[in-house]
Amino acid sequence: MTLAPFLDPSRALADLKELRALTENADGAQRLAFTPTWAKAREWLSEKMAELPVETHTDAAGNLWFTLPGDSEQSLIIGGHIDSVPNGGWLDGCLNVIAGVEIMRRIAAEYDNEPPVTVRLVDWADEEGARFGKSLFGSSAFSGNLDLEEARGLCDRNGISLPTAIAEYGIHFESVKDATRETKNAAAYLELHIEQGPVLLDLDLPLGVVLGTCGVERHAISFHGQAAHSGSTPMNRRKDAFLAAAKMAPEIYAITERHGGVCTIGSCHTEPGIVTSVVESCRLTLDQRHLSAPALAAMLAEAHAASERFAAEGNVTVTWERIWQIAPVPFHPQLIEFCDHAILETCGHSHRLPSGPLHDAAEVSRAGIPTVMMFVQSLHGISHNKIEDTREDHLLLCVQAFDALATQTMAWILAGKPEV
Amino acid sequence: MTLAPFLDPSRALADLKELRALTENADGAQRLAFTPTWAKAREWLSEKMAELPVETHTDAAGNLWFTLPGDSEQSLIIGGHIDSVPNGGWLDGCLNVIAGVEIMRRIAAEYDNEPPVTVRLVDWADEEGARFGKSLFGSSAFSGNLDLEEARGLCDRNGISLPTAIAEYGIHFESVKDATRETKNAAAYLELHIEQGPVLLDLDLPLGVVLGTCGVERHAISFHGQAAHSGSTPMNRRKDAFLAAAKMAPEIYAITERHGGVCTIGSCHTEPGIVTSVVESCRLTLDQRHLSAPALAAMLAEAHAASERFAAEGNVTVTWERIWQIAPVPFHPQLIEFCDHAILETCGHSHRLPSGPLHDAAEVSRAGIPTVMMFVQSLHGISHNKIEDTREDHLLLCVQAFDALATQTMAWILAGKPEV
Repeated sequence: MTLAPFLDPSRALADLKELRALTENADGAQRLAFTPTWAKAREWLSEKMAELPVETHTDAAGNLWFTLPGDSEQSLIIGGHIDSVPNGGWLDGCLNVIAGVEIMRRIAAEYDNEPPVTVRLVDWADEEGARFGKSLFGSSAFSGNLDLEEARGLCDRNGISLPTAIAEYGIHFESVKDATRETKNAAAYLELHIEQGPVLLDLDLPLGVVLGTCGVERHAISFHGQAAHSGSTPMNRRKDAFLAAAKMAPEIYAITERHGGVCTIGSCHTEPGIVTSVVESCRLTLDQRHLSAPALAAMLAEAHAASERFAAEGNVTVTWERIWQIAPVPFHPQLIEFCDHAILETCGHSHRLPSGPLHDAAEVSRAGIPTVMMFVQSLHGISHNKIEDTREDHLLLCVQAFDALATQTMAWILAGKPEV
Repeated sequence: MTLAPFLDPSRALADLKELRALTENADGAQRLAFTPTWAKAREWLSEKMAELPVETHTDAAGNLWFTLPGDSEQSLIIGGHIDSVPNGGWLDGCLNVIAGVEIMRRIAAEYDNEPPVTVRLVDWADEEGARFGKSLFGSSAFSGNLDLEEARGLCDRNGISLPTAIAEYGIHFESVKDATRETKNAAAYLELHIEQGPVLLDLDLPLGVVLGTCGVERHAISFHGQAAHSGSTPMNRRKDAFLAAAKMAPEIYAITERHGGVCTIGSCHTEPGIVTSVVESCRLTLDQRHLSAPALAAMLAEAHAASERFAAEGNVTVTWERIWQIAPVPFHPQLIEFCDHAILETCGHSHRLPSGPLHDAAEVSRAGIPTVMMFVQSLHGISHNKIEDTREDHLLLCVQAFDALATQTMAWILAGKPEV
């Protein structure tokens, strides 16, 4: 496909490099939310956007909005986050923002500053949650899902509370949910992101359509048996908590495979944990993910049943404790089709994949706004690391495909969002 | 079987209770070697033995010897250890010593202080090794197997070295191996001990013949894979160190079962050990035991092979590190027969079992002296704990059977130790 008139993906690439030089040190990106480097990045962004006839404001939760008013108040929102984890990659978050800048430029130029629908760019506040341990701050205030009680008590490692930290940036904690006002007239939401895994890399594809964000079930599983001397206790007398846990582990993975999800036993702790004693208690953590809520529920129920079975066989007991959970957020079927089409048009091959990690797009979707995400390949299959990278030709392709998606979505909004 | 003339097992029981009252507090027995309570216990023992016409001395390693000279210099040795672990049980160690006292009384009375062979009672110094982390101190000095280089550097938790601690009790560290002189004329060695496991309890038998002490292979097994995000890493891309270790564990136990040994995976440590990451490295400790050296070697080799197989299947690596090993020590076939016979005569049923834990008897046997042990049932199947206990009728039976064993062994020595 030839480039849309007025679009210049290489300009977005130059912008990315400019931001990188401004906010990165030898350890990686340092755009931690609610810090001076983050504020500097936002100032840089605002200067870029000042070249366009946009209305600019920060909402009650600190999300930064740029609005190019159109003939219709119905608005297409393009969103990302300029904040990064400490020592982060150069693309995670800001790629979407900067691609959005370029697409706003193209739309402004194409329609002589008067597009048929309103187009908005949002830089969400504190997507990463690296400082306070709670991600999606700004977008969950926007969606109304932010748990104020929980957020009020969060502190960073220096004991500074979240309300105190954001007050320094002009945000009044008790009013953050006023950001829900920004949902008015929101017709669709698009987000581009570097993939945080190796799926596209393994398939040798530049771009993919994200089907939604996976639901997560996170539990601690504790087996309890009896400590006994390793030399004097016959095998048939033992209540070995580790052995029961070890036997269960492959079955948990097999259950996951049957349902097409992912799961991880991330830690194993044994007590008393000495070479001369049978393990009395063994605690595993389990993280299960699936895009389908029924499949996730089945994975959990079957894992439960397996643990009970192996505990009974091993003459030990087992208890489960939920650490965290979140429901799957499937994206909008029509926008998924548009995204797939835009990718196919741009590079000839597409791929549909769920996102294991959460993104701001999940919160926007939970607010009832039709949403989709596009992923671009990550060279090492990783993010949240200074070696995070994407091939330059893929960066150019993703801006082009994302722009094509924006064009098709605008047309859909203009048509009253029909089922196509 | 009727009691041998002059033998009074109830006197041994009264002695046990007397020692218990003297050296136990609310947390259990406190006869830690090279401490005042241990010295008090030995003083009490010496007073008991002073009623008999015995020669008494402490050897170069602090082992306390009582010798009733006989017509022949060839000697029957009965041994035990009056030292206990801190907060230990009332029977572990001192049962053998006190049964020995009663048997010496019986022999002295029966032979009017002139038995046909010399009979010796030894209280080994620091069998438990609880203070310096090294068991069988006195008996390994006697056998010549004590590693002086290693022992010289041992310190307790207060930084006091073993040579300094034993000097307070008149033992010159550099001369401890002079204790090997005590092996002179040693014709046979007998030791009675409370079982430290539940084998006899499960069989509902009071007494058992110990076939020898198991060999031990103790290793750390480390699997190494790759840390990866639990949400964004597809299952087929993972190098999961925990999963490989978990799959191997049941196979290690199955190998043990095939060979009739025991094994224990006593600890499992995972890195980074967080709920959102695939395990990069997983370290297990493995303790394998068998009375047969070839069987133990086969268990180890097969476990090695299994670990390599599961590592390869899981796309991870595995390394082994030996923590400790000791060869099996089988006891003397003739004395095993005598012990079995004595038990059968005394209570109608016997049982042959290996000892997982080590005992002083293993060192005596390694010195080339025909050796056997007798076990008495432990009520809860445990030791090294203040709840350690044995039924009173079983305590009376064990003294009686052990005395019968001594009688038969003396006759065997007198006959020139023929193969029967």
